Amino acid sequence: MKKYPMDNEIEISEGLHEECGVFGVYDFDYNDVTSTIYYGLFALQHRGQESCGIAVSDTKGPKGKVELYKDMGLVNEVFTPEKLERLHGNIGIGHVRYSTAGSSTRENAQPLVINYVKGTLALAHNGNLLNALELREELSYTGAIFQTTIDSEVIAYHIARERLNVSSVELAVKNAMKKIKGAYSLIIMSPRKLIGARDPFGFHPLCIGKRDNAYFLSSETCALDAVDAEFVRDVLPGEIVTITPDGIMSDLSMCQEKKAKCIFEYIYFARPDSNMDGISVYESRIMAGRILAKSYPVEADLVVGVPESGNAAALGYSMESGIPYGMAFVKNGYVGRTFIKPKQEQRETSVRIKLNVLAEVVRGKRIIMIDDSIVRGTTSERIVKMLKSAGATEVHVRISSPPFLNPCYYGTDIPSGEQLIAYNHTVEEIGDMIGADSLGYIDANRLSEMVHGNLDFCDACFTGNYPIEPPVIDIRGTQG
Amino acid sequence: MKKYPMDNEIEISEGLHEECGVFGVYDFDYNDVTSTIYYGLFALQHRGQESCGIAVSDTKGPKGKVELYKDMGLVNEVFTPEKLERLHGNIGIGHVRYSTAGSSTRENAQPLVINYVKGTLALAHNGNLLNALELREELSYTGAIFQTTIDSEVIAYHIARERLNVSSVELAVKNAMKKIKGAYSLIIMSPRKLIGARDPFGFHPLCIGKRDNAYFLSSETCALDAVDAEFVRDVLPGEIVTITPDGIMSDLSMCQEKKAKCIFEYIYFARPDSNMDGISVYESRIMAGRILAKSYPVEADLVVGVPESGNAAALGYSMESGIPYGMAFVKNGYVGRTFIKPKQEQRETSVRIKLNVLAEVVRGKRIIMIDDSIVRGTTSERIVKMLKSAGATEVHVRISSPPFLNPCYYGTDIPSGEQLIAYNHTVEEIGDMIGADSLGYIDANRLSEMVHGNLDFCDACFTGNYPIEPPVIDIRGTQG
Amino acid sequence: MKKYPMDNEIEISEGLHEECGVFGVYDFDYNDVTSTIYYGLFALQHRGQESCGIAVSDTKGPKGKVELYKDMGLVNEVFTPEKLERLHGNIGIGHVRYSTAGSSTRENAQPLVINYVKGTLALAHNGNLLNALELREELSYTGAIFQTTIDSEVIAYHIARERLNVSSVELAVKNAMKKIKGAYSLIIMSPRKLIGARDPFGFHPLCIGKRDNAYFLSSETCALDAVDAEFVRDVLPGEIVTITPDGIMSDLSMCQEKKAKCIFEYIYFARPDSNMDGISVYESRIMAGRILAKSYPVEADLVVGVPESGNAAALGYSMESGIPYGMAFVKNGYVGRTFIKPKQEQRETSVRIKLNVLAEVVRGKRIIMIDDSIVRGTTSERIVKMLKSAGATEVHVRISSPPFLNPCYYGTDIPSGEQLIAYNHTVEEIGDMIGADSLGYIDANRLSEMVHGNLDFCDACFTGNYPIEPPVIDIRGTQG
Amino acid sequence: MKKYPMDNEIEISEGLHEECGVFGVYDFDYNDVTSTIYYGLFALQHRGQESCGIAVSDTKGPKGKVELYKDMGLVNEVFTPEKLERLHGNIGIGHVRYSTAGSSTRENAQPLVINYVKGTLALAHNGNLLNALELREELSYTGAIFQTTIDSEVIAYHIARERLNVSSVELAVKNAMKKIKGAYSLIIMSPRKLIGARDPFGFHPLCIGKRDNAYFLSSETCALDAVDAEFVRDVLPGEIVTITPDGIMSDLSMCQEKKAKCIFEYIYFARPDSNMDGISVYESRIMAGRILAKSYPVEADLVVGVPESGNAAALGYSMESGIPYGMAFVKNGYVGRTFIKPKQEQRETSVRIKLNVLAEVVRGKRIIMIDDSIVRGTTSERIVKMLKSAGATEVHVRISSPPFLNPCYYGTDIPSGEQLIAYNHTVEEIGDMIGADSLGYIDANRLSEMVHGNLDFCDACFTGNYPIEPPVIDIRGTQG
Repeated sequence: MKKYPMDNEIEISEGLHEECGVFGVYDFDYNDVTSTIYYGLFALQHRGQESCGIAVSDTKGPKGKVELYKDMGLVNEVFTPEKLERLHGNIGIGHVRYSTAGSSTRENAQPLVINYVKGTLALAHNGNLLNALELREELSYTGAIFQTTIDSEVIAYHIARERLNVSSVELAVKNAMKKIKGAYSLIIMSPRKLIGARDPFGFHPLCIGKRDNAYFLSSETCALDAVDAEFVRDVLPGEIVTITPDGIMSDLSMCQEKKAKCIFEYIYFARPDSNMDGISVYESRIMAGRILAKSYPVEADLVVGVPESGNAAALGYSMESGIPYGMAFVKNGYVGRTFIKPKQEQRETSVRIKLNVLAEVVRGKRIIMIDDSIVRGTTSERIVKMLKSAGATEVHVRISSPPFLNPCYYGTDIPSGEQLIAYNHTVEEIGDMIGADSLGYIDANRLSEMVHGNLDFCDACFTGNYPIEPPVIDIRGTQG
Repeated sequence: MKKYPMDNEIEISEGLHEECGVFGVYDFDYNDVTSTIYYGLFALQHRGQESCGIAVSDTKGPKGKVELYKDMGLVNEVFTPEKLERLHGNIGIGHVRYSTAGSSTRENAQPLVINYVKGTLALAHNGNLLNALELREELSYTGAIFQTTIDSEVIAYHIARERLNVSSVELAVKNAMKKIKGAYSLIIMSPRKLIGARDPFGFHPLCIGKRDNAYFLSSETCALDAVDAEFVRDVLPGEIVTITPDGIMSDLSMCQEKKAKCIFEYIYFARPDSNMDGISVYESRIMAGRILAKSYPVEADLVVGVPESGNAAALGYSMESGIPYGMAFVKNGYVGRTFIKPKQEQRETSVRIKLNVLAEVVRGKRIIMIDDSIVRGTTSERIVKMLKSAGATEVHVRISSPPFLNPCYYGTDIPSGEQLIAYNHTVEEIGDMIGADSLGYIDANRLSEMVHGNLDFCDACFTGNYPIEPPVIDIRGTQG
Repeated sequence: MKKYPMDNEIEISEGLHEECGVFGVYDFDYNDVTSTIYYGLFALQHRGQESCGIAVSDTKGPKGKVELYKDMGLVNEVFTPEKLERLHGNIGIGHVRYSTAGSSTRENAQPLVINYVKGTLALAHNGNLLNALELREELSYTGAIFQTTIDSEVIAYHIARERLNVSSVELAVKNAMKKIKGAYSLIIMSPRKLIGARDPFGFHPLCIGKRDNAYFLSSETCALDAVDAEFVRDVLPGEIVTITPDGIMSDLSMCQEKKAKCIFEYIYFARPDSNMDGISVYESRIMAGRILAKSYPVEADLVVGVPESGNAAALGYSMESGIPYGMAFVKNGYVGRTFIKPKQEQRETSVRIKLNVLAEVVRGKRIIMIDDSIVRGTTSERIVKMLKSAGATEVHVRISSPPFLNPCYYGTDIPSGEQLIAYNHTVEEIGDMIGADSLGYIDANRLSEMVHGNLDFCDACFTGNYPIEPPVIDIRGTQG
Repeated sequence: MKKYPMDNEIEISEGLHEECGVFGVYDFDYNDVTSTIYYGLFALQHRGQESCGIAVSDTKGPKGKVELYKDMGLVNEVFTPEKLERLHGNIGIGHVRYSTAGSSTRENAQPLVINYVKGTLALAHNGNLLNALELREELSYTGAIFQTTIDSEVIAYHIARERLNVSSVELAVKNAMKKIKGAYSLIIMSPRKLIGARDPFGFHPLCIGKRDNAYFLSSETCALDAVDAEFVRDVLPGEIVTITPDGIMSDLSMCQEKKAKCIFEYIYFARPDSNMDGISVYESRIMAGRILAKSYPVEADLVVGVPESGNAAALGYSMESGIPYGMAFVKNGYVGRTFIKPKQEQRETSVRIKLNVLAEVVRGKRIIMIDDSIVRGTTSERIVKMLKSAGATEVHVRISSPPFLNPCYYGTDIPSGEQLIAYNHTVEEIGDMIGADSLGYIDANRLSEMVHGNLDFCDACFTGNYPIEPPVIDIRGTQG
């Protein structure tokens, strides 16, 4: 169930999927930015392993000429040196998209590049619209045609139509934002501008960076680090930033009081070395471990984290409780996209192939095992069993998030109710089902302690408090 | 300069490129049609080697669910068994597109599949619109966005918009046809209908076939033969045919008196085993040879054709003149897409690598060499030189078409004036330039003899008599 | 069953397979020869489509350093520009190998590069040894190990062992030739020498070419033409030629009186534009047609050849009989290695997909159809049926070879007795089985007329007169 | 610089390379073992990322029929489902080989499959021979030819030759072992036997496992875990084990008193969850950390390990010193084989792309950073700099091995003297060069504490005490 540094562990994990990562750069000194985007996307790979793409343009070249390449696969699979060498430009955007089985297609990869009345636009989008179906229908009735099933196409349409009435792309973006409802962190490239926009709730992160005479937009700060850029600031919820050689223009007219930043970005999605809206992901995880230690103490010999995302919380638990921190697991990092999953009848269990227990560490010990979440429960059950087979005398499971009870409509792939073990089982029942000697989840009302007491967060998947009313029809799965 | 059976001879040839081939099938017995489309496209491969695609649907399945796969490459390169096995349906369309260097992209491959107000449509298009730019602009001003640069997207938009006002797809197609101007043979798949349409001038071919309880639409009859289907009839210029389980509906209301079928389909593009609008391609080429023999007789020992397309005309010349027919060339049929072209400085000439002369045949002989056309003249020059090096004492070149003088706006890739050797050289000069002892082209006013005296043909590339006024801006290169 | 220009038509054809083609070059001016070998192999592709390889060395570089690349596939599939660019040298050899289903492996591709007591050798071999099994066994008993199943490995071992006793590679080759029995045309590259050797019977061709300061060895002259080299002479049966900067040394001590050149090279295998041992392949085929016309005349309206290899004989038949020559077939040249073969239950017959009849040509006519051979009879049956369906009133089949009755042990993939239709059927029965109105084969005793009355040929597959006694155990399928 | 779970980090690391991993299985119940070998190799991937291969046979099938597939690449790249499905058998062996730039070739991949006097053998070899050159030369003088440059070919030859004189393969293996000198852990598959052999010094590990009615041989126990097999015992240094349906025969006649197991297997190569010769790799690393804490104590705030291999030693240091353990680094696990390395001139440093510092963790702290080794020093320098840029006030580097001073001739890719930073610099100088505030290496004379006081180890790379005299000529780089 672990995430970062992750390894496409679809097979063993009950993995939750972030929808996307976005990255953009505009170099005013006319240096080629293609490989910079490549490294930026590489640092955001954990946000999406299904497909990726890069669109670049030369702001000195013919206006509107955009070079695009996108395909299914990891960044280092899609962008071979040959492919990368064909792309040139001093402005560009990139995108990584998450991987689900089957439904994904090359057509749905991003960035989306369109030609419209005022020229060319490229879009990269992280999030999920709630009124996309209505908007598609409305557009349809005016004769619009759709070639993908992603929300980004709906956004593009609205920008294109609004552009007829206003004098700049950024104003068109603002007018489009008035119509679209939901979660979106957007990077838009027009022939001479790089535009970033974040929905008024700020569900997903977006930040600004700088290196010499180049400006960056990125889902996470870790991608700025990777390209040696300095973090400038976060894009604010509701803000539209327009980067041109004249500077960064900020339009705050869509900002609103209520924010709803996704708390699960801190728990699981984001890279621990990222900082989002002023809060360190790593520290929020350490804090989660501390909260767990205070809420659900237990006598034990060792605290271990399920790699990788459980490690920081385990360290926090250890710090708070004084129980030693240990490494109980070895993970096989070679699982790639084409890894052949063991069949059911095969003896080799898929968890064991990717995660092995260090028997020396756990033998004869009472273990506190920290993980970030339980979705269906099968992976947790297997890992607990592995620990016990290796000689652990007790296994106390602590989860650095509350139980999942509700689907997410803002861009996270949380399964619907029946598939969630917590949906129709008590915590005690779950503990029994996974074979734990005790089980503790972070209480939903203590989540804010993870993030400096901040209350601007969305915790709907745990509490059902949806900042935007969920749609009647399930619209999940069309996320950018 | 030869075409069929061709071998992707971009490198040595001055090859003219047909734009596309289209194929569709609807099986009322619910058999899977995917492999049938594969073989149909394979038989149309000579009409386009750049990219290909197949879209299929199950008329019993969820309405509007279309499975699509398309990519750059030949039919047998793109559709590996694995790819083919993923496509299922009893209705489907396919497309092959021609190959040019560089400008081609995967986005522009066809069929185009769109979602619109009334569901899903897939389109395959052969031809070229003359007012596509205007139409794009118009659409743009209503907020349309474009993700490809092909005319088919413009057609799709119009059908989608017209569908708002009328009660069926075929009526929407008709209304769209009232707006689009140019050359198009279209196959459209809606969830329960297969529709074929041909522009009122009938520039490019389209025919109907039948096998058991399945109906076909195809650019050429040779693809019907390949799938063992019977030829039913040609789609008429201006006709819209709608194939449903209830039968084939025909709407003739767009038909007009004036026709302008591309004469070059007979001279070069089409496969010799195809029959188009009642005329055998093979016989029209035999007749071309006979016309040449009558117009430009010469004393000689042997008539030879430049393979493959020159062979039939050479045989016709031989029949008419009584001079024996011979085979002077051996062609290497293994040249594939990735063939490495010799560099200029290399001794191996690229013509020689693909075409060798049978010295035994030509040594000491006066040769009449028949080819279908001369574009830039360089290939002809090399072939004449090869014949002479092999011992031919005289080489009289006869061309089974008139000199190219004008660009084509209806879907053929004829270079613009300056690149055409005939543009600023007399026939005599050209003969000298290519080293021929004499040179004769078919006279433009005798072309109709090739096609049974029929005058319904477009010969604008030779005569400049454009059936539709050429556009002010050059719109070539966006053909479907 | 047609061969050249062929199209890998394994599926539809009863195709007989030549085993291999070899090509070598030594450039004394130190030019890189890699691409020259590429083009040479490309011209020999018809001799083997299974696998190919190139080994090159720099005669100025470290002695014995050989760069090798080989893999399954056609020349233009295996040697992408990237692969080709990694090979450098002024001396090199190449090989193409034929394709069979299943048994072929990358390990068995050639050239074979070995390290042995005196350094490095690369070998390319066309032919088949008769005593390879015994030699392998003998070698085994001295502790030899084998990593391939090709005869070339046995030859390499013998050269390596003989080299211990003699002062030069070419002497070692001669001593090895004393031990190996069978058919072989060999090209051997040592660090500073290019050696060619042909077995004393001269079963398969090998010739010498020259271009500027570079010397060539090639299976066929067509490959010399392709690289613009001049034909110098054939390597004689039994001759060993050693090419060094000092000149071409010839060792004739292994020559013998009795020769046995494969007659089927002329009938089918070789390219018509090649000349072998002083005889034009094309002319021998024309002559075959003439012989057929004299032996098996029939009243008819048209003579047609099954493309490609039947065309020349058809022309010869027409010349001799005065019956007009025509083209009855159109062949689809796009069939590549990955072409998906129709399943039995599919309506599309595989012959029709690759070969279509020109109905206009044959309708109402009495046809004489010339093919080069009949193996199992199924393809012939299908083609006759296609002609009749297209309206031919009579189909008289003439075969430009005698009936196959015996397997070949010298390098041709002729199936064993039971699979040969002629093995247990009379000519009349065969004619009935394939639906022909009459059937005539060239009489075995007139074969010599094809080749200028020359009697130095092997016709064992037709007559059973084996120049070397066949082995007790069937050793076919290990050919180089 | 880290190893396990590693990520092909050739680019950023000064990585030392283990040569190979071997795995074999014999299922007496005739279950197919191919996928079991796949998972076994996958668990051994850290021992070699250059190439891999699997050879299987059916002990009920035709004697000596071996199916083999091998190629360059990681296990999950080489063995796609299609490739794996083609291999069938109930006995088989597999191999992974390490990756170096350039010199590696497909020919050198293993297993090696040979045909010899007694049938077929497949070999997989981990180690390096010291007298391979002499043995090759000797073999050469008897006419042997070599098609690879790997030692395994030399071993195969000797087994083949010895087999002429003795009655079983295992006796031939023993006799071959008398001739070969060096490090080798061998798995050999004959048609009906699976044989394991370990050189008398026991340089590299080899162990036996069991699952139901199947027996296993493996380089490390972690691969037994991955396939759910039980560890039975280690193969002893000098032992030959022969697994047949009759049981496991053990031949101890080659065993000797002196052992020399590679200590670096514990420090770096092996997976921490493996147990070798009775010693847990994980515990030996914890112990290394403890030794360092005792030998080189320092006042600090936090102990961190360079992931992954430094983590266990860091934990040990923390335990011993009482200084808290922390995680300072985030590693990007997505770097695959085709990852594009940043060019020198690019701002993005390659270390930063793969490893980022958690600034929150290190800011304002005195850090003890544990790594397993320093080879050239450049990576250590960069990591220290990253820590200081992130705000660490002091960085004390502790290395869980002594300084490298000497090359290894037994199968490890340690560069030669000049490239080793410790070769001509004192520890103090090195500390200065990498920017550390202090630097401590484990003392060579305390190494035995890591492994329970055991003295049967080879530490030649640190001490120069070579258990077998190094050869005069450098023979490294031909390892299996």
